[in-house]
Amino acid sequence: MTDLSQMSGLEQLTAMSQGGKVLAPIAGHFNMTGVSYSEGDVVLEAIPDASHYNPIGTVHGGFAATLLDSACGTAVHTSLRPGESYTSLEIKVNFLRTITENTGPVRVHGWVTKAGSHAAFAEAELHDADGKLLATASSTCAVFQSRR
Amino acid sequence: MTDLSQMSGLEQLTAMSQGGKVLAPIAGHFNMTGVSYSEGDVVLEAIPDASHYNPIGTVHGGFAATLLDSACGTAVHTSLRPGESYTSLEIKVNFLRTITENTGPVRVHGWVTKAGSHAAFAEAELHDADGKLLATASSTCAVFQSRR
Amino acid sequence: MTDLSQMSGLEQLTAMSQGGKVLAPIAGHFNMTGVSYSEGDVVLEAIPDASHYNPIGTVHGGFAATLLDSACGTAVHTSLRPGESYTSLEIKVNFLRTITENTGPVRVHGWVTKAGSHAAFAEAELHDADGKLLATASSTCAVFQSRR
Amino acid sequence: MTDLSQMSGLEQLTAMSQGGKVLAPIAGHFNMTGVSYSEGDVVLEAIPDASHYNPIGTVHGGFAATLLDSACGTAVHTSLRPGESYTSLEIKVNFLRTITENTGPVRVHGWVTKAGSHAAFAEAELHDADGKLLATASSTCAVFQSRR
Repeated sequence: MTDLSQMSGLEQLTAMSQGGKVLAPIAGHFNMTGVSYSEGDVVLEAIPDASHYNPIGTVHGGFAATLLDSACGTAVHTSLRPGESYTSLEIKVNFLRTITENTGPVRVHGWVTKAGSHAAFAEAELHDADGKLLATASSTCAVFQSRR
Repeated sequence: MTDLSQMSGLEQLTAMSQGGKVLAPIAGHFNMTGVSYSEGDVVLEAIPDASHYNPIGTVHGGFAATLLDSACGTAVHTSLRPGESYTSLEIKVNFLRTITENTGPVRVHGWVTKAGSHAAFAEAELHDADGKLLATASSTCAVFQSRR
Repeated sequence: MTDLSQMSGLEQLTAMSQGGKVLAPIAGHFNMTGVSYSEGDVVLEAIPDASHYNPIGTVHGGFAATLLDSACGTAVHTSLRPGESYTSLEIKVNFLRTITENTGPVRVHGWVTKAGSHAAFAEAELHDADGKLLATASSTCAVFQSRR
Repeated sequence: MTDLSQMSGLEQLTAMSQGGKVLAPIAGHFNMTGVSYSEGDVVLEAIPDASHYNPIGTVHGGFAATLLDSACGTAVHTSLRPGESYTSLEIKVNFLRTITENTGPVRVHGWVTKAGSHAAFAEAELHDADGKLLATASSTCAVFQSRR
């Protein structure tokens, strides 16, 4: 049996995905899957559909916000050392282009701009399959050291 | 039959909810319902559950982000004059307290801080049933005039 | 002689202003003065002038950003317990209305939305003398415990 | 005599700097100078000093915020077509590393992530002379068409 607390964040995420575990329950709402994880850098994919529409007939901003928050948080997660944990303090999202059910699968790339033992910063970009930039985000996470 | 383009934003939202129409498809993912709409001010409710969890065992930031984006966008919608439409340009969310499936129903209050014919600003707060502040947001929307 | 490290943040700020010390050197660039400090709540004042203009003939966004960052940071400062220190992690500013040299003195009100031993959140609003809302901000600060 | 209204934004900025005009009055407060302007991309430089200090003994966040706002706004300015003007709607700044009077000259690079006839988006990064990332920002601007 694996003891996650002895692993780095990247080892934890790799172990969780090798075990066939989905990224997280939230992923089901947005057809989200992990594409690649390396230290301080992650790529996720998701598929927008009609169930994500807002009252004005386009995909709700919450779709992009959720993906970008996942990418920023997971990027920070991959940068954690054994005994560290994190939580998201804030995210800011810019919605550059409208997303519809015809947009097709989208990819979100997240990376750490500065790791730290108390706080960490990450940014993320959301592109469609043609490489068009749909949305961008920056986020700050709190980092905690386990007390032994 | 109703012609939405002749209505103010508040009249549109009132007509849509009187017709028994749900807030929007996205609402289904987050158990979201409208509570009240007035000009420049809206209240929505939602229920977090285990399906909204992130990989670190709490409700994903996308839950709060989606609610707050709905509240900001809908508040701006209620302030539109006939012939105006809007889209969200950006949102910034602060995550003050952890949300879990035990948090229970949450309420998000959104209000317009400045309406405008080209851009509009809104802010929103998310509280639990005890009135504890869970998250806050500020957002900017583009406002468009229909060309006749 | 006063030992700031034994004081709460509010006591530190009160001592510094009683000693006739200006708010901080940066205050000189923006004609900024402190108006009131209480726990988790501060009011500052500043006067925009032609030296703050940007290339498009209005007061530069940095004027409002600096005031709002001061108000958020100082509000967090007033909420610190003895032995705590802080630094600002991020700020987001919405520019609601244009500021010019004719705007006159402006007041910025900052308050803590959630204090904490690891991170703290604050928001702020900038008004003109007529009470018109000029800009708003939200900010996150890291809080540090001194190691003894 | 030059008629700025017939020029693109890049032509305007080039004309203003050829005429020996400083970037803007605000530049004097932060020892700011323009380094390069091209369409949708600008580099500025500034020198932090003791006059920019906050009450906690480091350079105030307003220094980075002002530089980053200048870079985002000016990048948008360089992307404007003749007859267009702009104003900044919001900026979000992440403070990654502390700046002091010993940091030396810093460079801020701003670029447009999406131009537009109604709104435009830009991002910016602030580095020290060693290439260390000090702060990042994202911003949204409103774009206006002159009515003839």
